Formats: sequence, C-alpha cells, structure tokens
Amino acid sequence: MPEPIVSPEFLPRLAQGGPFSDAERQAVYRAIYSRRDVRGQFEPDAVADAVLSRILDAAHHAPSVGFMQPWNFLVVRDAEKKRQVADIFARANTEAAAMFPEDRQDQYRALKLEGITSAPLNICVTCDRTRGGPVVLGATHMPDMDLFSTVCAVQNLWLAARAEGLGVGWVSILKEAEVKAVLGIPDTVRIVAYLCVGKVENFFATPELEQKGWQARLPLEDLVFDDCWGARHSKPG
Amino acid sequence: MPEPIVSPEFLPRLAQGGPFSDAERQAVYRAIYSRRDVRGQFEPDAVADAVLSRILDAAHHAPSVGFMQPWNFLVVRDAEKKRQVADIFARANTEAAAMFPEDRQDQYRALKLEGITSAPLNICVTCDRTRGGPVVLGATHMPDMDLFSTVCAVQNLWLAARAEGLGVGWVSILKEAEVKAVLGIPDTVRIVAYLCVGKVENFFATPELEQKGWQARLPLEDLVFDDCWGARHSKPG
Repeated sequence: MPEPIVSPEFLPRLAQGGPFSDAERQAVYRAIYSRRDVRGQFEPDAVADAVLSRILDAAHHAPSVGFMQPWNFLVVRDAEKKRQVADIFARANTEAAAMFPEDRQDQYRALKLEGITSAPLNICVTCDRTRGGPVVLGATHMPDMDLFSTVCAVQNLWLAARAEGLGVGWVSILKEAEVKAVLGIPDTVRIVAYLCVGKVENFFATPELEQKGWQARLPLEDLVFDDCWGARHSKPG
Repeated sequence: MPEPIVSPEFLPRLAQGGPFSDAERQAVYRAIYSRRDVRGQFEPDAVADAVLSRILDAAHHAPSVGFMQPWNFLVVRDAEKKRQVADIFARANTEAAAMFPEDRQDQYRALKLEGITSAPLNICVTCDRTRGGPVVLGATHMPDMDLFSTVCAVQNLWLAARAEGLGVGWVSILKEAEVKAVLGIPDTVRIVAYLCVGKVENFFATPELEQKGWQARLPLEDLVFDDCWGARHSKPG
C-alpha cells in the first residue's frame, strides 16, 4: 500500500506536511469530481481480490471518533442473498414511489435506483455501536459520531474504488431490519450503507439525477456563509 | 477545477471509466493514508481564498441522497465566535472527562482534543433537514441519509485539504444547541461537523490516539466477513 512520505528525522511520530504536487492534487480532485453513484452500468467481471483489499483498507483508514473503528464490511457475493436483498429493495421502492406527489411518481418509477444483482459484489458497511465500550472519546456529546465515522469509511471506499475503475452505488431504499435478517447482523449493529460494487466502462459525467432532470446542482456560493448563518461569503466559492 | 477525462463521443452524458494511472491511484491513496485528525499543530497563516474555495467545492461534490445537497458551510474566522465555541468545548470536555472510568481520566485530560482558536479557520458543516421537501428520493426508508450525505461532504473536504497541505480536526465534544446559538443556526438544521482548518507543517504518521496509547488499530481481517455476519473472509484484507 502507498505510505505517506516521511522525513526520517520525524520517524515514526510525524510525517511531512505541505501540499501535494500539482499532479497529485489533480488526481485527488479527479477522484472527487468523477465519482458517481452507479446504479446500472456494472460489468459482470469479478473484482480482483487485491483491488477489493485495497478499497477495504482505504475504508479502514477513515477517521473514527475515539479511534473506535466501529465498522465491519460484509462482502456479499452469494446470488441467493443478493436476490433476497433485491426483493427487499423492490418492496420498499414500491412503497417509496407512492409517497411522492402524483406528478413525480412516473418519473420516480422510471429511475433505475440499484444494481444489487447485476453488480458482482455487494458490500454491506455496518456500525457496531457497542465496540468502544460504554463511553467513547468524542462521542460523549454527539452520540451519532460512530455512525458518522462509518460514513467516512464509505466515502474513502468510494473514492478509492473510483481510482480503481470500480463503480459504487449506495442503495438506501431498504428496510434495515429485513436486510439484517438476511445477513445475520446482530441487534447492536446498524447498517450504514449497502453498496453495489463492480467494474464500469463509463461513468455519468455529472450526477444521474441531474442528467435525468430530477434535481439540479445548487450554486455553491448560496451554501457558504461567513461567521453566521445567512451571512453571504465575500468570495463566492 | 480538474474535470474527469471524457471521451468526446460520450459527451456530455458519459465519462470514461477504467482505473486511474498508477501515479494517480498512488496520490488518492496518499491522501487517504496520510489524512489525520489534527488538534494542535496549526500554523497561524491565513488559508488562501482559492484553496478554501477548492476544498469547499470538493465537499459540494460529495454524493447526496436524492441529490438533495443538504449541506451548508459556515466559515468562522471571527475571534470572538471562536472563543465562544472554545468555551462550549471546555465545559463539555470537563463533563466528558468525568464519564470515563477513573483509571483513564488522567490520560483523557492530558489529550489535546481541539484547535478551535489556534486554527485560522473553523468550518461548521450543517445539514438542512428540510431542503429536499417532505419526501426525498432514497431517504424514504433510511431517514438519516441526509446526515450521512453531509458526512460524505466532510470526508471529501478532509481529503482535499490534506492534498492542499491543510490539517483538519473534527471537534465533536460540543453541545450542539449552544454552538447553534453562537452561529445563529435555525432549528431545522443540524450541525454535523465542527472543523478546525489550517496549514500544518507536519502530520502525525499514524493516528494521534494510536500514538498516545489510547486505542490500537484493529486488524482489517477481523472486520471483513463473507456473505454473512461472523463468516471470516477467505482472503484477509
């Protein structure tokens, strides 16, 4: 695995700071800007074990509150389990469609929102809420911090996957209790993300929901405030 | 900003997939592996507006459920506001220390857990829970998805900041209601992350809580399961 560049005089405690080279920064931004939520373009090819290990290790190097590392990764390849999860999605998605205003229901139903059985891998990323013991450093006043740490792991995995040429789709239209039953997940563990993962030949150039007219990108400058809620930033982002 | 490489024949709908070059992948992994939660090594130098814009735009390109983009970014430079937030931290941290078993309290109190006033910038990242209207695509069955989307924005910002030579520290030992009062944040908006941001000369080579003996890194292979909770992965990650 790549390691940070370290000045020998600071080993092992400190690693050199400073910005990355222009080419390195460009690569980091390329991952951030070209990452997509992929629902439907998965190739059937198996994901190589070395690549899977790299994206899981990237996830494992996310920040976590109190360094509790509350995550687990259930790698689902079994066709029957994937089919069961796809059924859970289908039932939830039928319920979901009916919740929208009538004039959006047809548009909603036309969207492809998961690639559970077409992706060679599913990865269920969970958060064990008991892992750090009863008191966790940094979670004493914000009890969701363990869930948030697990989301950081998901985002690390997603960016590493993009750099590896793998698409990732986060399926959230699921009943958590039903998926937990399929995968044997204990009561004290929360599902944070159910991911479909596989090689894709092409990514959408901009988010699929933007391309399909569901929702436009908001201007960043409307979202940045100076010192106080509602105070517009002097230099638009 | 860097843009994904796009094959002209697919413009504007699709961008080319495939893995990044070795050097680009290395850069993405360098950001992931050398990112740290920084509490105490901030230089006083102002963060350049162009760099701030880049890390905020990186955050804004995180995935979000239903493309709702529920985030706002309050950039706090005002010394008095920072001092008030630091006071909120100090009170919460005194409470937090008392929650630990007695034999860990001295170790807890010796840890430096925030750089609120020493960092040139604080960025409060919030989630507007009403932004997408009453029904949000993808959040119908997992109501925390807007918060999780906001965490993805935080992680994008964190990795971009590392590539820019900026340290980021996430301060979670805060009473949310008190910080909201200082920053004038409305009731329907949640604080997801309060970040301290600034240039650092050196980063710890491994997490600070690991170096200081608070918590060890868990072996990845213990965290990866095959198809079912508890089933060990055949190829350790």
